[in-house]
Amino acid sequence: MIQDFISVCGAIRRQNPLVHCISNYVAMNLNANALLAVGASPLMSFSKDEMRELADRCDALYVNIGCPDSFLVDASEIAVQVVAELRKPWVLDPVGVGVTRLRTDTAMRLISVSTPAIIRGNASEIAALCGFVTADGTSIPAPKGVDGSDDSRGALEPAQLLARKTGSVVVVSGPVDFITDGSEVMTVANGSPLMRRISGAGCTASALCAAFAAVEPDYLKAAWCAMALMGVAGERAAGVCHGTGSMQPALIDELGTFNPADYALNIKTVAL
Amino acid sequence: MIQDFISVCGAIRRQNPLVHCISNYVAMNLNANALLAVGASPLMSFSKDEMRELADRCDALYVNIGCPDSFLVDASEIAVQVVAELRKPWVLDPVGVGVTRLRTDTAMRLISVSTPAIIRGNASEIAALCGFVTADGTSIPAPKGVDGSDDSRGALEPAQLLARKTGSVVVVSGPVDFITDGSEVMTVANGSPLMRRISGAGCTASALCAAFAAVEPDYLKAAWCAMALMGVAGERAAGVCHGTGSMQPALIDELGTFNPADYALNIKTVAL
Amino acid sequence: MIQDFISVCGAIRRQNPLVHCISNYVAMNLNANALLAVGASPLMSFSKDEMRELADRCDALYVNIGCPDSFLVDASEIAVQVVAELRKPWVLDPVGVGVTRLRTDTAMRLISVSTPAIIRGNASEIAALCGFVTADGTSIPAPKGVDGSDDSRGALEPAQLLARKTGSVVVVSGPVDFITDGSEVMTVANGSPLMRRISGAGCTASALCAAFAAVEPDYLKAAWCAMALMGVAGERAAGVCHGTGSMQPALIDELGTFNPADYALNIKTVAL
Repeated sequence: MIQDFISVCGAIRRQNPLVHCISNYVAMNLNANALLAVGASPLMSFSKDEMRELADRCDALYVNIGCPDSFLVDASEIAVQVVAELRKPWVLDPVGVGVTRLRTDTAMRLISVSTPAIIRGNASEIAALCGFVTADGTSIPAPKGVDGSDDSRGALEPAQLLARKTGSVVVVSGPVDFITDGSEVMTVANGSPLMRRISGAGCTASALCAAFAAVEPDYLKAAWCAMALMGVAGERAAGVCHGTGSMQPALIDELGTFNPADYALNIKTVAL
Repeated sequence: MIQDFISVCGAIRRQNPLVHCISNYVAMNLNANALLAVGASPLMSFSKDEMRELADRCDALYVNIGCPDSFLVDASEIAVQVVAELRKPWVLDPVGVGVTRLRTDTAMRLISVSTPAIIRGNASEIAALCGFVTADGTSIPAPKGVDGSDDSRGALEPAQLLARKTGSVVVVSGPVDFITDGSEVMTVANGSPLMRRISGAGCTASALCAAFAAVEPDYLKAAWCAMALMGVAGERAAGVCHGTGSMQPALIDELGTFNPADYALNIKTVAL
Repeated sequence: MIQDFISVCGAIRRQNPLVHCISNYVAMNLNANALLAVGASPLMSFSKDEMRELADRCDALYVNIGCPDSFLVDASEIAVQVVAELRKPWVLDPVGVGVTRLRTDTAMRLISVSTPAIIRGNASEIAALCGFVTADGTSIPAPKGVDGSDDSRGALEPAQLLARKTGSVVVVSGPVDFITDGSEVMTVANGSPLMRRISGAGCTASALCAAFAAVEPDYLKAAWCAMALMGVAGERAAGVCHGTGSMQPALIDELGTFNPADYALNIKTVAL
């Protein structure tokens, strides 16, 4: 795993994958700078008229439904379709699924258009998404907002179920991140509580998943590497900042200057 | 007042109010991170299709007309309507009112749909808004842009008039902030001149007003506490930064780590 | 040239020009804070209904096609038209021209509506734009994404051609910036490689070009001063930051506190 992490991080820096991003307005700047920092090239657009050409050029697509305006959702649907035709990976961040019907419907529609390589959300989102997928939604505690709860472990079973239903690798973010393809489960136990109080930190983890999926066809490995990178970078950034304001630039600094071998030795996992 | 400040700040951290934000694109990230810092949860959306569900869930609504696109304005109108039906507070930031007819019309229309708990603007905006409300708009000096002028005291009378006409608490930001319900007037004399040169600082004060209104039903008190918090945090951030670039993260750091008792003792007011 | 730089920087601080910005969502916040830092006032709007009134008030217009949504493009077309009628300068940042047909068509359409005072792009964009203008587009290497290549010198000839065809001053950003009106060529050799890894840094250079064009009717001089300011500020910011995250606030700090006389002495040029 250590060797995988080092090699995949190196691949991004070498190959400079182009990631087409359909993100929300709040997280866009952080997403773009994080992608640039790790060695990828972001291209943000949700203009329907260029979705096909961008699909031709990009190495991966990242779709975030945090601000589900109709034109953004429509563009996402086209983008997901054309990227799938070209057999390029796409990553879904189902922000706020379970909070409103619009978000749930949007996520479900996109998943039905084509299988995401990776779905990354917090515990509430993954539980909600799984509930709707399995049609037993009544048993799932509704999330309050988009912040998500601490209980990532509680969403492990829904995550596995969702992975098996969809064929996607599913990531549940939290104090421990769980990454699963439905059978195998990997973990990352790095990070900092401060991360949950930075707007767009979760979205940025998803954007990195897309960059990693662009260079690593084993999406379980790609997702795990992305979450490990975010986790260790978050930990380091938390150690040098004075609060959630200075943590944002510190996080980008980390992502742009980290030594993969050093980071690899500091990845923590948990026994299941 | 000192005790009020401490207790209301504590209430936000304890109750973690959900604030639905319809903000402008420029200030969104700062707004979201400031809300998270003080202990609230932001949810940014202007999708008409989820305005009702978000009104059900949120504890307050914050509407900022800084980028008055038609779909944003339409969503705001619905959001204001449904939040009012549920008797939850909403806060209006009338960015650029008086600069264009569109902005003035938009602010007036939203106010006519339901009375904001709090209206916060700079002197030009409050004067312009009052002018249009009272139909003697010809006597009011038109603002140049959205930056606003220094003369908050000059807008005190318009602010009182506007408060009486609308039933809202009105806040005029400036070197001295004036907060009034039409009869009583409170002041905050903290802050830093640098604040006016950070894009979205005023918008962020309005977002905090919404968070405070979510936990404090006395909106005069809520608005005063929010302005006092922004003022002292701005003062402290100005003291540790190297310019308006590093001030933005420093401000968020302050908002996320401040000691309410310490801050309370440093709030300055002026005699009227 | 040293004296020009000092005098034009002083004019911005003194005159506080209002720059109407139609920017992309990713770069908006950085654009706004950079304009405020140098002494200009940004006003961000792409609401068709206020384009005429904003044209009346503003001193310059900045249009960036980085997120070419239809309503943003439509608003730009109106804005460019009305600003031209009022003989105020506008600056075009043709982000991603050559990457998709939509971007190329959009840039071409805006240029055909009225001549920009200044067009600023990276080498790929200027080469692509020139290719389409001259109808020999087939010979131009297509850019990969929106990051642009290092080879600004390679785009000097296309830049001169484009300047002569359009009547605009054309700026090619890169390790060396070339600024030309088709006959005269000026250079700036400051900056830092980190700048290319900050999302929106190029856009911000364009926004500054608009602020400078607002106070300096010799657009060749205005563009050169703007690029010189960005170059020296970038160099200084790179010297005090820890990566591309902390560089963004450091850049704004520099732009807000620089001493024009000191900066002027540190501008580097190259022999052609």
